[in-house]
Amino acid sequence: MHSDLNEKALALHKKFQGKLGVTPLMTVADKEMLSLLYTPGVAEPSRVIAQDKNASFDLTMRGRTVAVISDGSAILGLGNLGPEAAMPVMEGKALLMKQFAGVDAVPLVINSQQPEDIIEFVKMVAPSFVGINLEDIEAPKCFAVEEALQAIGIPVFHDDQHGTAIVVMAALQNAAKVVGKNFHDLKVVVVGAGSAGMAVSRMLLGVECIKDGCNLVEGAAAVRDVILVDSQGAIYQGRPGLNVYKQAIAGLSNLENKTGTLAAVIRGADVVIGVSRPGLITQEMVRSMASKPIVFALANPDSEITPEDARAAGAAIIATGRSDYPNQINNVLAFPAIFKAVVKARPKTITTKMKQAAAQAIANLVPKPTAEQIIPDPFLPDLAEKVSQAVVEAIDS
Amino acid sequence: MHSDLNEKALALHKKFQGKLGVTPLMTVADKEMLSLLYTPGVAEPSRVIAQDKNASFDLTMRGRTVAVISDGSAILGLGNLGPEAAMPVMEGKALLMKQFAGVDAVPLVINSQQPEDIIEFVKMVAPSFVGINLEDIEAPKCFAVEEALQAIGIPVFHDDQHGTAIVVMAALQNAAKVVGKNFHDLKVVVVGAGSAGMAVSRMLLGVECIKDGCNLVEGAAAVRDVILVDSQGAIYQGRPGLNVYKQAIAGLSNLENKTGTLAAVIRGADVVIGVSRPGLITQEMVRSMASKPIVFALANPDSEITPEDARAAGAAIIATGRSDYPNQINNVLAFPAIFKAVVKARPKTITTKMKQAAAQAIANLVPKPTAEQIIPDPFLPDLAEKVSQAVVEAIDS
Repeated sequence: MHSDLNEKALALHKKFQGKLGVTPLMTVADKEMLSLLYTPGVAEPSRVIAQDKNASFDLTMRGRTVAVISDGSAILGLGNLGPEAAMPVMEGKALLMKQFAGVDAVPLVINSQQPEDIIEFVKMVAPSFVGINLEDIEAPKCFAVEEALQAIGIPVFHDDQHGTAIVVMAALQNAAKVVGKNFHDLKVVVVGAGSAGMAVSRMLLGVECIKDGCNLVEGAAAVRDVILVDSQGAIYQGRPGLNVYKQAIAGLSNLENKTGTLAAVIRGADVVIGVSRPGLITQEMVRSMASKPIVFALANPDSEITPEDARAAGAAIIATGRSDYPNQINNVLAFPAIFKAVVKARPKTITTKMKQAAAQAIANLVPKPTAEQIIPDPFLPDLAEKVSQAVVEAIDS
Repeated sequence: MHSDLNEKALALHKKFQGKLGVTPLMTVADKEMLSLLYTPGVAEPSRVIAQDKNASFDLTMRGRTVAVISDGSAILGLGNLGPEAAMPVMEGKALLMKQFAGVDAVPLVINSQQPEDIIEFVKMVAPSFVGINLEDIEAPKCFAVEEALQAIGIPVFHDDQHGTAIVVMAALQNAAKVVGKNFHDLKVVVVGAGSAGMAVSRMLLGVECIKDGCNLVEGAAAVRDVILVDSQGAIYQGRPGLNVYKQAIAGLSNLENKTGTLAAVIRGADVVIGVSRPGLITQEMVRSMASKPIVFALANPDSEITPEDARAAGAAIIATGRSDYPNQINNVLAFPAIFKAVVKARPKTITTKMKQAAAQAIANLVPKPTAEQIIPDPFLPDLAEKVSQAVVEAIDS
């Protein structure tokens, strides 16, 4: 099945030479239009913008256009394949941005994987866009890059982190309802401490982090206990060799400061969220969890445990990253709406409150969640409109 | 009239919030399309490109998409208004690229006017595009920037220089025919030694220049004598204070090493080409030229001498940058075709031979030139197709 899908995907990309076009909104059919849209007429919007830079949002495509930027260092689950190989994914994100939220987006892949170069590039290109979607940039570099770009005047949003975190948060709120457990009291194990794992943990804990540490966001819906597991096992306070980001999260997560392997710390957990590699979660592990285990196995295309195995081991709710099973945790539920809100309201950053509002709004779009549907279908009409409205309302609150 | 045009232009830019949209080439109407164009299907083109970077030209929009990049340091005739104010012009160029040549183009304005930053930015963004159109970058910085970018693997073309030079070259070849003078023997005075004046002079002389000097291009159609005039008067060998680019051109132009003002050196010239400021060319100057003077007064929107004044002073052929007079020297005759050729053949640079071929092809599109028509109308059907074909043929010759 995969090879069939792959062939079809390749043929489609070849046929259209990618997926996006840049198209004029009006036709230059005669000399008058030429003189209005190009010289000499174009001088007038230029003069107006020279007087007030903010007018560029109203008089050029900038005001409705986002850049989707990657260095190709962590492409999907494929790894570091370089910028050229990232282009199909960036073009795909840009396509979904338009399709699901009406936001114009330009994919840009860049020729360096040095954090300082990425930071410099985004600062340089900022006057062209209303917001920046960073994508497929590996951890922990992505944290430093994003942190350095919070004050450039337009929002910078690393989707692998926050898009994933928002949708996981929404799904988990509804999953808790289905199994009749209190969200706040869930014991969660997150497998994988890359960009997604770190962001999911931060969001579930209701904290905002920079390299110097984390702080609790007031009023955030949060889970009390999260244990983050990387290739060395549970992350705990005092574990040798932790980078600054893992150190910061260690201070807030893993309340009992458990040590040991995934198999050890998953015992008694209510939820396991895999954002790592195929096969890492076994049936034995699921069987060792608390009653009605919630299993989010999000590695793509092959998950940490197959839905069939998870079900057989007693999982009450299963979500994956795949479109061919129920409960697909798909960032497309979040990032188009986030940037629709950016286009509408032009905030300077995307705050945790705005992300929380997005998660809540996505969760609310499934009024009666079931084990087979904890999150809305991406094709639900007006999804982006509704979620973006919630995000906009969270801007000043 | 101008204020009416300005108001109309502003209203149009406001209404559409700029001029371009980014649009999907296919619709994601269901989960199957979602899985083909995004995960998991999109992984396949990424894998193929990871094996061969050149496949990115065939499998993504890169292969048909150009960046139009400016730092906003020399916007039209308006000067240094900064990157935001350059966006309407860049969007206009991109629109014309699509409209006249079917080439997708993305406008990017950048947040630094330091040459090394511009160079770094273009190198960084190169994997996203098939070619780069630089625009509205001031001289002499633009020469150094372009020179540094000749070996990055995709063509970098500064349109203010080469687009103007190509169209002037085409127009002048036909103007010479109309007045019955030999092109090679024309005595030309170029007023203004910015990006356009320098490039026009180089192209008319059939030379290629870098900061270390110039050399003759074999087989190039060329004029024997060009005098370049800047704000200090004629540029001649030995003039104190010349920058490296003016020094280099001084060694090849101004055969009699004339000194003095424009009024002094224009006496007896066959052609004057103004790429400078309104009002610099007087009727007395035109009267002092050789018989049947050719006057290209290209400053925009107000020219170095009005067509009416030039005519009254005896000019045989008049060209301007304006669309409301005959013989508009408009870069739109060149740059869309140049980039259409880039999309077709993917050359690594745009050579002087390719530019010469473009000029020749544009000139040839007016089989019987007259004083009122020395260059084709931009709306001539198939113009870009024909010119691009000539450019492609010049790639390996």
